[in-house]
Amino acid sequence: MAIRFELLKESNECMARLGKIETPHGTIETPIFMPVGTRATVKAMTPDELKYLGAQIILSNTYHLYLKPGHDLIEKAGGLHKFMNWDRPILTDSGGFQVFSLTDLRKIHEEGVEFRSHIDGSKHFISPEISIDIQNSLGSDIMMCFDECVAYPSEYEYTKESMERTTRWAARCRDHHHKWDTQGLFGIVQGGFFKDLRKESAKSLVDMDFSGYAVGGLSVGEPKDLMCDILEYTTPFLPKDKPRYLMGVGSPDFLFEAVERGIDMADCVLPTRIARNGTAMTSNGKVIIKNAKYADDFNPLDSECDCYTCKNYSRAYIRHLFNVNEILGLRLTTIHNLYFLLKLMENIRQSIREDNFYKYKESFYKKYGYIKE
Amino acid sequence: MAIRFELLKESNECMARLGKIETPHGTIETPIFMPVGTRATVKAMTPDELKYLGAQIILSNTYHLYLKPGHDLIEKAGGLHKFMNWDRPILTDSGGFQVFSLTDLRKIHEEGVEFRSHIDGSKHFISPEISIDIQNSLGSDIMMCFDECVAYPSEYEYTKESMERTTRWAARCRDHHHKWDTQGLFGIVQGGFFKDLRKESAKSLVDMDFSGYAVGGLSVGEPKDLMCDILEYTTPFLPKDKPRYLMGVGSPDFLFEAVERGIDMADCVLPTRIARNGTAMTSNGKVIIKNAKYADDFNPLDSECDCYTCKNYSRAYIRHLFNVNEILGLRLTTIHNLYFLLKLMENIRQSIREDNFYKYKESFYKKYGYIKE
Ligand SMILES: [Zn+2]
Ligand SMILES: [Zn+2]
Repeated sequence: MAIRFELLKESNECMARLGKIETPHGTIETPIFMPVGTRATVKAMTPDELKYLGAQIILSNTYHLYLKPGHDLIEKAGGLHKFMNWDRPILTDSGGFQVFSLTDLRKIHEEGVEFRSHIDGSKHFISPEISIDIQNSLGSDIMMCFDECVAYPSEYEYTKESMERTTRWAARCRDHHHKWDTQGLFGIVQGGFFKDLRKESAKSLVDMDFSGYAVGGLSVGEPKDLMCDILEYTTPFLPKDKPRYLMGVGSPDFLFEAVERGIDMADCVLPTRIARNGTAMTSNGKVIIKNAKYADDFNPLDSECDCYTCKNYSRAYIRHLFNVNEILGLRLTTIHNLYFLLKLMENIRQSIREDNFYKYKESFYKKYGYIKE
Repeated sequence: MAIRFELLKESNECMARLGKIETPHGTIETPIFMPVGTRATVKAMTPDELKYLGAQIILSNTYHLYLKPGHDLIEKAGGLHKFMNWDRPILTDSGGFQVFSLTDLRKIHEEGVEFRSHIDGSKHFISPEISIDIQNSLGSDIMMCFDECVAYPSEYEYTKESMERTTRWAARCRDHHHKWDTQGLFGIVQGGFFKDLRKESAKSLVDMDFSGYAVGGLSVGEPKDLMCDILEYTTPFLPKDKPRYLMGVGSPDFLFEAVERGIDMADCVLPTRIARNGTAMTSNGKVIIKNAKYADDFNPLDSECDCYTCKNYSRAYIRHLFNVNEILGLRLTTIHNLYFLLKLMENIRQSIREDNFYKYKESFYKKYGYIKE
């Protein structure tokens, strides 16, 4: 089996846990945040920079790579790791999320999904088997089952039907996957915001014995409390000896809430996307660098940060770079934001180790501005 | 005096020379190519990357920095070196070239040039004294006199008048400059494509005893032979113990031709600009990476190059990055092109040292495709 999870410690305070995941490309310490490299590149970063920042694993998107440059080309290149010069673990999604997002361009059948490319309108078809074939070509360490992520809000009946289909598709993914020795496969729990459906989804998937389990269909626009409630209800149905992955979460508060409820892995484009718009996450909250007040601010983005950006560049300089559309500006903020989140996860791991997760969470929330004093 | 030039060797074959320039921020080996960092950043590069690539000195543009973020802000930051985190030498141009390029937006007086900003149309005035003030605020190691670069072709009368004004302005720049201990100042020879004017310009400027001399007004669209002819005529009027700088030259052939005629320094946006458009300079000529033939070419951009890009990434991958507009694509080609040119200059220096400049030139031209075999 490609993926082995070791549970190192359970928190005395909450459901948080400390672990490690062994993969064919190295070991990941959990809980972990995974930077997103949609098109075989984490936007504006080199793999060497990602290593410097402490990235242990990155995520890449099957849908985008399938369209461009094509998984066949990547397979010919020797796989995604070699193609993009990244020798640490890679997780690929199944393409399901993107295909189902093409609301007006897709048709769902039991067999799979017909859709038109968002780039050129060309016709395509992805089934559970095809998604696995593509991910096998890419050679990611962790693959995901082809699923439907239901929108919020959705009716009970549709959510149930969809969840049951996702479960049937998970079985097909598992049966079709033929590289268990080099690639793990995660099941994705769906069921929207209905607890009985979540429970049924989790139980069916656990019976199929995947390498790990994702909780999908959360962080899709619902209130934060509702997300926390469903997550807290769902994780106990997942086995302790398998990694748990919450999809699409990357703001500091959501990361804390997820870890508190037993999540080991998370991913999101947020830190890199807001960086390119000139927003930095700092220990004292967000800094929108284009604001006039930073024009002659010669302090670093975050005076408590020791990343390359904060050690060498001022807010005034970075603001100037954004004002004149220079690429270095978004490079520097991307470096900082990724470092900030990866460091946050390291601190969270440390707090679990020392059983002071809640104390760390509270002090972070106060400084970041989540709790008004 | 801030700038000291040491002539290490004159070629036995041609006017090429080997030297070094001592500046307040370190020593430069000549002949050298200077990457351009127009807005206090060499596009898409960090200063650390520039060092890795072997950049010994960079150029920055007074006109652009004057408009954004303003030289006062940069002075407040502690000067341009500190502002942009570059601790090696910087050369600033005078702003003259950009101001005179605003053909419809400027008025020339003996006192200076009135112009409107290309950004917002706001009114400005730059005189020789103001240009020096701005460059003193920026704190560059080498400053340039405020001059007019005459277009090609231009009438004799206009060229003469303009050259004479440039000479008067040079005297005013020299008299106004008050930081000779930390910043050098170069005069700029003008005179278009008229040898008597070139001679007169050179002689007058040499009498003023500048830190070095630029040959301006070449590489402005004239035939290459004409440029070579004027350059070859002009450099002998310049003192041997001062550095000589040819402005706006950055293609491999122009660099060879310039060095052959006694030039020590050159700059151009070419290598970085074409990199961002997906064109790489390689030992076998240009590679236009978007061409379909590179789609499954897993060789490096240049198999003889040992830059970061060529050691780690394939043409197929870089082509993919350009096809999906990923920043890493232009970062990787910029790295390669700068490395290629800086390495070329290193090889040229070596060939002068070993008195086989012509042999090296010929072999390079053949491989690059300048000479058809
Ligand atoms: Zn930082
Ligand atoms: Zn290279």
